[in-house]
Order: sequence, then C-alpha cells, then structure tokens
Amino acid sequence: MPAVAELPQTSGLDDYLARCKQACDGEIERLYGPSDHGTSGLRELILDYPLRGGKALRPALSIATCLGLGGHLDAVLPTAATLELYHNAFLIHDDIEDDSWRRRGRPTLHIDHGIPIAVNVGDAMLSLSLQPLLDNVERIGLGPALRVLRAVAHMTRQTVEGQAIELEWVRSNVWRLDDADYLRMVELKTSWYSFITPLQAGVIAAGGGGDRLAPLEVLGRHLGAAFQITDDLLNLRADPQDYGKEIGGDLWEGKRTLMVLHALRRADAEDRERAVAILFKRRPSAAGGELGLAELLDRLTARGELSRFGRDAIAAQVLGRRDAEAKTLDDIRWLYRLLHQTGSLAHARDVAAGHARDAAAVLAGLDWLPPSQHRDMLTDLVAYVHGRTR
Amino acid sequence: MPAVAELPQTSGLDDYLARCKQACDGEIERLYGPSDHGTSGLRELILDYPLRGGKALRPALSIATCLGLGGHLDAVLPTAATLELYHNAFLIHDDIEDDSWRRRGRPTLHIDHGIPIAVNVGDAMLSLSLQPLLDNVERIGLGPALRVLRAVAHMTRQTVEGQAIELEWVRSNVWRLDDADYLRMVELKTSWYSFITPLQAGVIAAGGGGDRLAPLEVLGRHLGAAFQITDDLLNLRADPQDYGKEIGGDLWEGKRTLMVLHALRRADAEDRERAVAILFKRRPSAAGGELGLAELLDRLTARGELSRFGRDAIAAQVLGRRDAEAKTLDDIRWLYRLLHQTGSLAHARDVAAGHARDAAAVLAGLDWLPPSQHRDMLTDLVAYVHGRTR
Repeated sequence: MPAVAELPQTSGLDDYLARCKQACDGEIERLYGPSDHGTSGLRELILDYPLRGGKALRPALSIATCLGLGGHLDAVLPTAATLELYHNAFLIHDDIEDDSWRRRGRPTLHIDHGIPIAVNVGDAMLSLSLQPLLDNVERIGLGPALRVLRAVAHMTRQTVEGQAIELEWVRSNVWRLDDADYLRMVELKTSWYSFITPLQAGVIAAGGGGDRLAPLEVLGRHLGAAFQITDDLLNLRADPQDYGKEIGGDLWEGKRTLMVLHALRRADAEDRERAVAILFKRRPSAAGGELGLAELLDRLTARGELSRFGRDAIAAQVLGRRDAEAKTLDDIRWLYRLLHQTGSLAHARDVAAGHARDAAAVLAGLDWLPPSQHRDMLTDLVAYVHGRTR
Repeated sequence: MPAVAELPQTSGLDDYLARCKQACDGEIERLYGPSDHGTSGLRELILDYPLRGGKALRPALSIATCLGLGGHLDAVLPTAATLELYHNAFLIHDDIEDDSWRRRGRPTLHIDHGIPIAVNVGDAMLSLSLQPLLDNVERIGLGPALRVLRAVAHMTRQTVEGQAIELEWVRSNVWRLDDADYLRMVELKTSWYSFITPLQAGVIAAGGGGDRLAPLEVLGRHLGAAFQITDDLLNLRADPQDYGKEIGGDLWEGKRTLMVLHALRRADAEDRERAVAILFKRRPSAAGGELGLAELLDRLTARGELSRFGRDAIAAQVLGRRDAEAKTLDDIRWLYRLLHQTGSLAHARDVAAGHARDAAAVLAGLDWLPPSQHRDMLTDLVAYVHGRTR
C-alpha cells in the first residue's frame, strides 16, 4: 500500500483524497481479514459501502494532521480506517432511518438485503471498530492510544445525541427552531465524527495534543456546519449521478434543515400551517409499493372494478388512518416552491459561506502546523466544502 | 445502592439476581446521568428496555465471579452495567430484525417509536458503552481495564458474526444443517455476550485471569447452548405474560432453530419441501395491517365490491410477487404439527439437558472458586437454565 508521504507531490485535493482512500481501503480490507467462518457473508457486506467509492474525507483529515506534524502513516492508518468504518456504519443505519433508496449510485444496503441484515451490518461495523483502536496500544503507545479511544468515545456520544435530536424534531413536528438550534444539532450530528475527531485523532497519533486540540475543535465545528448545510442544499437539487443519493429525500422525511426552518419562520401563517402539516405526513413506504396504491385504487374505482366502499376499506387498511396519511409528490413540489419564495436557499448559502470563511481563518491561524502538502490539502478542503454550494 | 457482598445471605437465585439488578440499574442511570441536551429524549429511550425488568443475568454473572474471587462490587459494576446495555442494545436491534411486536410485556421499541428512533437508540447504547470501559482504567488499573476492553471487543465480534450467520440462513433458506452447525451459530450469537464474557470479565475485574479464563469459556459455551435452546422452546409455547415476547415469532421469522432443523432432517421429502417453502415466505408486515388485507380483499370480492381483476391488481401491488408471499396462520399451525410429529421438541430438550449437565460438571470442577453465596448462585443458575425447559 503506498505511503502518502512517500508519493510524489500531486496537483491537488482530488489526488490527495484518492491516495488516502487507497491506503484506507487497503487497511479496512486488512482489518477484516479473510472471514473466520465463511457462511455469514458478513465480510463482503461490511466492505460493500466503503468499496462503493466515496471521498474518504475523514481518513484524509486524520492523515493530513498526523503527517503534517511529522507523524507516520502507520501510526494513524488504523484510526483513520476506524473513523471511515464508523461513517459507513452511520450511513447504513441513516439510510434505514431515512428510508433512503440510493447511496453512491446503487440501492441502499437495506433495499438490497433487507432491514434485518442492514441493521446487523451497521452493528458489526460499530462493534468491530473497537479492535483497531486497541491495536493502537502497540502501535502508538499506551497514552496516545487511550486518548484516541477517549476521543472516539466522546465522538460517538455526540453523534447519537445529534441524531436523536434530529429524529425527535421530525417526530414531534416542531418548527419554532432558529439557525442556532440547527447549528447546535449539526455540531453534534455531523461535526464531531466528520471533522473534529478526525482532525484531533491525527494530531494525537502524531504524538501531539494538549493546546492543539481546542483550535481543531473550532475548525471542525465550522467545517461541519458548512459541509452539512451544503449537503442539505445538494439534497434539494443535485444530479443523483453526482450526489449518489435520491433527490429531495430530506423533504420526504420531514427533516428540519436550515432552509426548511427558515422558510417556516418566514412564511405567512397560512403557508406555515400547510407546510407543517405536510412535513408531519409520513413518507410513503418504498417497500410496499404504497406510492402507487392510491393511484391504483382510484383507477380501479373509475373503471368500475372497485366500489367506493371497497376503496375506503382498503385505503383504511393499507394506507392507514388520516393522521398517518403519506406525503404526495404535489406536497413535495409545493414545499420546493415555498423554499424558493422565502429566500431560504440563499439564506442557507450565506450561512454556509460564513462558516467556510471562519474555518479558513482558523486554519490560517494554526501556526504550529508547518507548510506542507498536508496543510495545503486542508486549505483546499475548506474551499471545496464551500465550493460545493456554487 | 446496596453492595451485594454487604447484604445478608439470602434464600436463593431470585434474590441474588434481584440485588444485582438493583445495583446494575442504579449504575446504568448514573452512567447516563442527566441528559446533556434535553431535547432529544435519548436518555429516557436508552433506559426504557433496562427499566422494563428482565433478569439482569449478565451483570449477575460478572458480579458473581468477581465477588466470588474476593473482588469488590465497585470494580465490576461499570463493566456489568455495560454488558447489560450491550444486551439491551442487541434486543432493540433484534426486535427490529425479527419484527417482534412485544418485549417484556410491552410493545417493542420500534413499534412504540418507529424504526428510525429504535435503530438510533440501539446505536446510542452500543456507542455509549465505551466510556465506562475507559473509566475502568482509574477504577481497576490499566492492565485489567485493557483486558476487559479486549474481551468486549472479541465478544462483539463473535456476536455480530453469529447474528449474521442466522440471518443468512433465513435469507438463503438453507435446511441441510445439523445440531453442530446450530450450536456453533449459538456459541457466536449467544454464548459469548450472555455467558462467556460476563463470567470472564468478573474474574478480570477481580484481578484474576490467565488459566481461569479457559474453563469459563467452556462453562459459558454449555450454558449458552442450554439457554438458547430453552429460549427457542419457550418461543414455541410459553405464556406471553411469563415470557415477555410473542409466541411462535421464530416460526414466523423462519429461524433455523435446533427443532426446526431436526424436523426438516426427519420429515419425509414431501413434508420437508412444504416446510422449506413455508419458511421461505415473508413474515406479514405488522405495520401495514397486511395480515388482514388478503381476507379483506376476499370479503370485498365475495360481496361484489371488488372485481377479480381488481383483487389481483391490488394483491400484486401490496402483497408482492409470488416469491414474496407472506406466511399465514395455517402455515404456522402446520409447522407446529410437524415439529411435534418428528419428535423435534423432545430432541431439543435432550440436547439442552446435556449441555446443562456439562455446564454443571465444569462448574463443579472449578477448584479455584471458593464456596460462597456467589458460587452457589452460579450452581443455582445452571439448574435454572435447565429448569426452564421443564
């Protein structure tokens, strides 16, 4: 496997990320070795999402801070691979939680293999992540290994809390939330596991720590905010070929993104009431073919194949009670229009740009990180995170 | 909280388990402290299953080996609580994977709160379990703390592999499996996290280890086999009031229990073919009211509210293609009869009894564990695990 520091200087962010991904993929395959038992297929399922592609952003962050401080790739690679596995475990479970249908250009794991297997594969990745962090004791010494373990323990606690807050917002259908509420949720849900801990773990693996960790927490918080808002914007408009998951899923799911919350605050009372009512409706089930059932029942009724009484009885049985009514395509189109009318997309772009600027300023002030391709990558990354919104 | 060793001698297993549960519940509530953020409701959801009851068998095993070797309750309680949390996290995710509807006398977490929240609560419990194991460094010293961490890492790896094997058996609808295949799966799925690691972690927390761990692995393997076979037998016949989950769920799910595999081997070719075909059918969905839909469509058709064409169109849309046909109550009743006719229940009881006897013999041979109420509890526990089958 090529050591990042040993390869020739390259032209930019994409090459750096590609080399980190290659090293990380090799480490992940090594970690899970040949299957012990053979009959479960678990190894292949664990490697499915990581090997579909993705940028391996989190490993690159750890590798950059470690190597940027003179550390060795060997010292950080197990930790980097572990963070990438956590990310992929969260993706698998997120896809179940959001009932997302596509990920990185292919059906999501629970669509391919069913929810039971997908839940267990995510659990497997969360569970198996502990071993490489314990192997760190031999690799980087006891003190740093324990500090990485503590950082990961803190990270996971923040992540599940952020996820719980977001799910609770959807469940309780709240709308009186402002930018600060959203940003606090995103810090917990996204910034810790995607930015703060990867940046800090690299420093710890290089034998550093202490007063270097605090500014990286600030940097990671701003990067996380810019990244997540951008991700939410892309969910509304990107080409699935580029983005790798379905469009508008956040609206179907009723997620409280910065844009949605802004639109709810800006809309007049009538529009707000309608928007809140739409967001509260269920997402139609992908598995049951439910999205098409209402249309089918209408068609059968119109053709005299089904009485009105029969139609209502079937709808009550399958589509559920009125309070469990599902969103329709027209609902989603109406929400799109509201987001545009209230200037919520522009507002979100402004907030993301502000956090990207703040991140660049924090990074520029890190005087203990000497100039190198690794530091350059971090600078490019800040621009990239912002650039995705353009 | 009462220290187990400090309480007066009591009359038996139930009292011992009750005292361990009380201590463990207190520790779990302490671990998760007052919620940091307040808005997610995560703390209450995490405490839901543990506070519903349950025997706290795993904490009791850890406490018994630790105190039985002269260790202190303080030294083992965080580890015991962590193991109980792992167990409850696995239960939450198992209930999703099996689409179980009831647990400990109440609706399962995903029925109460939806799959998204239930997936995240399980993740939260898995993730948060790391912190108390790190706190062990201060509590029992670095060496034992690392050994507990390694034991837990090994345990989780075994558990998810066992779970993956069982899910894969269902998915691929295999039947050419014998007792040894089943027992190997159960060792992975059940014995490690329910018996072997709890027993071993108590010894490690007491400062022991070395050659004491191997016989505990053997003891835990036999206990796990006796326990799981008994659990599978109870699933077929117990009163839900006593057992706390629905009856026959394993058959609906198509699980390859020892009894089912024995019946498939013993049945004649025609019965086997029918049984395998039934096992391969989906479980009807609890959420969609699907179990009643076929009956509703039949009723509407009989009453002239629905044409035969309309009936087929709706059935194709909602009930799926023929290969995704759902099991019926008659299917399950037929499987019950087959299990009786092939003597499979008696066979399973024999195998369970054999493992209970082996466990008793291993326990009797542990000459380094002095006589005490803690050792007595382990002896009573072996009898209890076997006794559940009577």
